[in-house]
Amino acid sequence: MTSIVRNQWYVAAYGREIGRDLFSRTICGESILFWRTEAGAVTAMSDRCVHRRFPLAEKPSHLVGDTVVCGYHGFTYGADGVCVAVPGQARVPRTARLRSYPVVEQDSFVWVFIGEPALAESVPIPRAPWLSQEGWTTVAGREPLAARASLLVDNLMDLSHETYLHGGYIGTPEVAETPITTEVDDEAGVVRVSRRMADAACPPFYANSTGLTGRITRWQDIEYQPPCLYTLHSRIAPVGVLPNDDGTDPDAFHVEVVYAITPETEHSTHDFWAVARDFALDDQGVSDFLAESNRTVVLQDVAALNVLEQVIAGEPDGYQELSINIDTGGLAARRMLDRLATGR
Amino acid sequence: MTSIVRNQWYVAAYGREIGRDLFSRTICGESILFWRTEAGAVTAMSDRCVHRRFPLAEKPSHLVGDTVVCGYHGFTYGADGVCVAVPGQARVPRTARLRSYPVVEQDSFVWVFIGEPALAESVPIPRAPWLSQEGWTTVAGREPLAARASLLVDNLMDLSHETYLHGGYIGTPEVAETPITTEVDDEAGVVRVSRRMADAACPPFYANSTGLTGRITRWQDIEYQPPCLYTLHSRIAPVGVLPNDDGTDPDAFHVEVVYAITPETEHSTHDFWAVARDFALDDQGVSDFLAESNRTVVLQDVAALNVLEQVIAGEPDGYQELSINIDTGGLAARRMLDRLATGR
Amino acid sequence: MTSIVRNQWYVAAYGREIGRDLFSRTICGESILFWRTEAGAVTAMSDRCVHRRFPLAEKPSHLVGDTVVCGYHGFTYGADGVCVAVPGQARVPRTARLRSYPVVEQDSFVWVFIGEPALAESVPIPRAPWLSQEGWTTVAGREPLAARASLLVDNLMDLSHETYLHGGYIGTPEVAETPITTEVDDEAGVVRVSRRMADAACPPFYANSTGLTGRITRWQDIEYQPPCLYTLHSRIAPVGVLPNDDGTDPDAFHVEVVYAITPETEHSTHDFWAVARDFALDDQGVSDFLAESNRTVVLQDVAALNVLEQVIAGEPDGYQELSINIDTGGLAARRMLDRLATGR
Repeated sequence: MTSIVRNQWYVAAYGREIGRDLFSRTICGESILFWRTEAGAVTAMSDRCVHRRFPLAEKPSHLVGDTVVCGYHGFTYGADGVCVAVPGQARVPRTARLRSYPVVEQDSFVWVFIGEPALAESVPIPRAPWLSQEGWTTVAGREPLAARASLLVDNLMDLSHETYLHGGYIGTPEVAETPITTEVDDEAGVVRVSRRMADAACPPFYANSTGLTGRITRWQDIEYQPPCLYTLHSRIAPVGVLPNDDGTDPDAFHVEVVYAITPETEHSTHDFWAVARDFALDDQGVSDFLAESNRTVVLQDVAALNVLEQVIAGEPDGYQELSINIDTGGLAARRMLDRLATGR
Repeated sequence: MTSIVRNQWYVAAYGREIGRDLFSRTICGESILFWRTEAGAVTAMSDRCVHRRFPLAEKPSHLVGDTVVCGYHGFTYGADGVCVAVPGQARVPRTARLRSYPVVEQDSFVWVFIGEPALAESVPIPRAPWLSQEGWTTVAGREPLAARASLLVDNLMDLSHETYLHGGYIGTPEVAETPITTEVDDEAGVVRVSRRMADAACPPFYANSTGLTGRITRWQDIEYQPPCLYTLHSRIAPVGVLPNDDGTDPDAFHVEVVYAITPETEHSTHDFWAVARDFALDDQGVSDFLAESNRTVVLQDVAALNVLEQVIAGEPDGYQELSINIDTGGLAARRMLDRLATGR
Repeated sequence: MTSIVRNQWYVAAYGREIGRDLFSRTICGESILFWRTEAGAVTAMSDRCVHRRFPLAEKPSHLVGDTVVCGYHGFTYGADGVCVAVPGQARVPRTARLRSYPVVEQDSFVWVFIGEPALAESVPIPRAPWLSQEGWTTVAGREPLAARASLLVDNLMDLSHETYLHGGYIGTPEVAETPITTEVDDEAGVVRVSRRMADAACPPFYANSTGLTGRITRWQDIEYQPPCLYTLHSRIAPVGVLPNDDGTDPDAFHVEVVYAITPETEHSTHDFWAVARDFALDDQGVSDFLAESNRTVVLQDVAALNVLEQVIAGEPDGYQELSINIDTGGLAARRMLDRLATGR
């Protein structure tokens, strides 16, 4: 049984990845071809020629204006996936068209709809506005994960692991020690996990980017919109500094840590990560530091999750995990994913 | 269900590959040991010792005169596969004999019969006389293909792909543009596909070997004898130059492009290729050029077909191709192969 | 169906391999964590955290005193495998404990009991006293074998292969030529195979270590205690020199070649080998020579058996071997292993 949720929008790429080179990425087990038209629109269609299934992103396939020419026998397709020329005959069969995918460029991402295209309009695309908004500076990347998406969801929903797996980067003892509150909004399709540390050590990730040297108030407010988008609203301030009653919060540092969790196959995942901040906006040194640090942290997770995927592959059926309080958010996310996968 | 046709002759090797070193090759999933007797005859027998299945081509197995000695426990076999000595006892069990294969050396190839040996005599061995005939010079090679044999058959039966996959080598626009005629001879077990271009550009493959500089008459007459032997009778001449009424054709250049398509396993293939020409017979420069060019073209096919094999491995069941006029020959070949595989 | 015999003691490691670093080895398909307490005792427990199955031998998991801390979320376990701390809450769930394995250090080996722990006391641990006894000097190693354990049992029970696979090291023509006697003691669970050569060439393995230059009396007395322990009692002496009537044997050289055969998985094996001698006890040159020679011989076996595993993986079901007299011991060992696997 598949664990991949269909009829959903997924992040397929950053917009900057798609240009006038043919670009292929496997999303939820489907090999999809992306390219930009001469006018700059992103197209998404099946990466398999209808004739003999040659991948259209494989050389010597190539673009000619707003058409893509298959490198095997020259079948030629327009931006809508419809075949416009075949070799050796003038008539193009009516059924010669590539599957075309609904695609939207938003918040720096290229979103693609996996499932029944007619449903695309009725399914909202989750937002991560900070990634392309005035007043924020973002660093971002993508790491290939040789593990199922649900392992990454587990990982991100329970940040107590920062203390152990990411000690010296973003983990301090207080993360594992501080209890969480969890809120499940089935209506909106959101799981929220909140951990608010009133008096905590400041890990290098934040000390080096904010300049804070003493102990801090540290808020971790997770918002996960299954299946694809996860945001950690992170608030850092000197101990005792709280937001104003009117919601303004001028003396705190805000970081939005965004993950787009896109299944590549049943057992591998695209781990898109982005870190947006509302301070030191033009400081390239801070950008470089946060990019390097967050990538290191992501790769620590990737290494651990790749191990877990192999462990699962080798374990007997019916293996039982043991869950405790810290897992409340992760278990809620699993239930929501299960419901989405089996039809709510 | 297997797609491999049995009770057929297949090319296992070039004669020059078999000598006094033990040589093993997997043909249609069977691991076969080849070596020459002191008198020069090629032998073919199972490459598995009857005792504990040690491969007889694996060191320290070795030849002693006209016997092969297993490198694990010393079981010793004659050229007919019959065991003549075992360790620790004088009596050799009567059932100790390796499976022996009918084998024929012909047209530079070593042919082996896969299936019921008693049927070997009743199945004709296809001929490729140019490869070892006075008046012809041949260059040849073998490339491993990590794809099922039927993908290579598809490839070779539809040469419109030359225009796209082999542009700059043997492809020109006229190949894809020119319609084909197809002839299926179920009685003889032959599929013929013919494409005759009256006025075509001369691709580098022929320009550099024949010296022709202008436009040419180019005939591509394919003859495929499923499952193993494929020949492209290629005729190149200046535009307007046709054979004489008596069949003689002194002013044209003739090239016989031969492929032996031998399944290694269900999903891998030995791609034997040979190019025989009736001109520039002693010109080593032409030989070197044709060998290098044809190998390049073969490797372009290999790369594309290896991709297709992976695509098929990853695609859902029931994937549907779309076929057009250029596929007539390939589809006829598939039908003939199906009939052979399931028993005609 | 598994071929691995359970409810048995297996060699998991040499004692010297286990210290204050976390050490994991897969034994009979179970991933087991080993470490020594501060007092020096060897512990053996499941290498999977009960929480989210993270391997406890994987960094950043680490020892703190006599506890092991999981590197993912900090679950902490004592030497008995019982969890003593979890993150974010004071209460440790009662069921939070790792599976613990009976473990005994003996004869230089760490033995672990695979199966129902309650049965461990009733199953005797085979002995190899020479490996840690006054009056003997031992060289030892371990090679990973990518083949099922039964192939190594076959190999070791039939030493006629020394003549072919190990010619120039320990094989001479007499080994394959000399008949064996086999004795099966079902009660004690032992198979004995004896080959006594009265007048044989001395292979380099013994010539270079004993200094004997002429022909020798060579006894090979095999004792196999399925599933794990194999000993070759090897006696070398000048031709005609026999033990005294009282059993003393001062003019012979004795070598105990011990193999512990421990399945890693169904298709891979830990090949522990040790060579103990009662001569040249302090001669480092002899130790180096025997270590290097025996490792070479073991690697020759490993190479051959790895090939056989691949052969078996590729062969059709129902493949039939042919056995002869030399296989009597090996076939007896297989029967005993089968009985142990299916319950005697």
